[in-house]
Amino acid sequence: MENLRVVLVDTRNPLNMGAVARAMSNFGSLHLRVVNPYEKAYRQAVSAVGASTVMREAEEFALVAEAVADCTLVVGTTAVGNREVQQPLMGLQEAARMIRERLETSRVALLFGSEKRGLSNEQLSYCQWLLRIPTREEHRSMNLGQAAAVCLYEISRMGERAHGGMRSSKGKIGKSGDEAGKEFAAMETVERITEVWLEALERSGYVGARARSTSEEKLRRMLRRFTMTERDAEVVLGMMKKMVGKLEKG
Amino acid sequence: MENLRVVLVDTRNPLNMGAVARAMSNFGSLHLRVVNPYEKAYRQAVSAVGASTVMREAEEFALVAEAVADCTLVVGTTAVGNREVQQPLMGLQEAARMIRERLETSRVALLFGSEKRGLSNEQLSYCQWLLRIPTREEHRSMNLGQAAAVCLYEISRMGERAHGGMRSSKGKIGKSGDEAGKEFAAMETVERITEVWLEALERSGYVGARARSTSEEKLRRMLRRFTMTERDAEVVLGMMKKMVGKLEKG
Repeated sequence: MENLRVVLVDTRNPLNMGAVARAMSNFGSLHLRVVNPYEKAYRQAVSAVGASTVMREAEEFALVAEAVADCTLVVGTTAVGNREVQQPLMGLQEAARMIRERLETSRVALLFGSEKRGLSNEQLSYCQWLLRIPTREEHRSMNLGQAAAVCLYEISRMGERAHGGMRSSKGKIGKSGDEAGKEFAAMETVERITEVWLEALERSGYVGARARSTSEEKLRRMLRRFTMTERDAEVVLGMMKKMVGKLEKG
Repeated sequence: MENLRVVLVDTRNPLNMGAVARAMSNFGSLHLRVVNPYEKAYRQAVSAVGASTVMREAEEFALVAEAVADCTLVVGTTAVGNREVQQPLMGLQEAARMIRERLETSRVALLFGSEKRGLSNEQLSYCQWLLRIPTREEHRSMNLGQAAAVCLYEISRMGERAHGGMRSSKGKIGKSGDEAGKEFAAMETVERITEVWLEALERSGYVGARARSTSEEKLRRMLRRFTMTERDAEVVLGMMKKMVGKLEKG
């Protein structure tokens, strides 16, 4: 993401600038450029309490041409309203893939136009191609800060890259807790639960003597449908034992 | 997306509510639920000029349990700061895949906590598992409206859907039996189990009066980890009621 330049053109609202900067910071894109911003709004955004480093270190340019000068790929964002599109138009996923590829070797500029009108035809003319976030026909136009967040999420694809704890590894569920909290319960534990549970059912009169074996099978199948960790299984076992103990006395 | 319920819990800022509603409208998720919102902010958001239909038609609830009662899957969002995570945690991509699958057959609730603190442990205890948007370690916490936009983008995957093939359709569990045997349990049933089960634990002396609320949260989390069908849930509920009845007499 070090090679990405997010370029805000003609932005009017300081809250939107701040929101874009925040999303950039979230997704590791730290270089913001602003072109011809509404000056007062820009000052406000930069000096806002809680302004991110990204916002405070933004570079200002008078022209789109200057802001994209050192980039090898310039991509414009558009909701594609009534204006006729003159460049190749790509869905976000495909676009993000191409942007990532280019980022490996050189700088890429991603342009966002003004809140009201988006990028003008003149501004779009600096772009090699355009990117559209797939939204509903009936409500295409996104809020600037949200559009930036979605684009940066898709471009950064942090989850995939890091590959850290987020795959659905088979032996384990979730990430936190100790080992017993992560491992799926062994069948022997589940079977012990089945036994004690059944005893609780008998002692409470839920299961009559005759129906015992049918109930046992049903219960066994049911408990195996639950996704229990070893820890869960131990807890359930303890609970059931306690109930059985009490039911015995009662 | 018709089956998705976005649930905002304890939201304070009307601009954030509006932003979430707008992203929902962009990505075709039209059913917003708010739990215990800061009342003035909520009124402001609903009556704002340009408030989306989604915002104006939001449903209000007093409790998380009520807002998720008709859903079979409840997913919490978290930036995973210092609070220890007690549930399985999934990256957004994997999570979105699982959510999409479930949406084919039944309702899914996606919870967002307050801007300051996110979801509390008590609120998280209503969730089967948690979702995290992969962000930079140094700046994990996202703006609410942006987080919602990114989640909905990934869940809707509008661009891809046009292409067809993304489901590994598995909306149902189990192979045989009637409909009730196959459908996932609604959260209101699971919550009723939680209550009766807790009563059984108290009556059997497993839970002391003092530890009640901690035990309740633990139990709630655990029961939500189990993959219960509606039929399973009813069976478990019946069993527990019977045990409670017996323990009462004893």
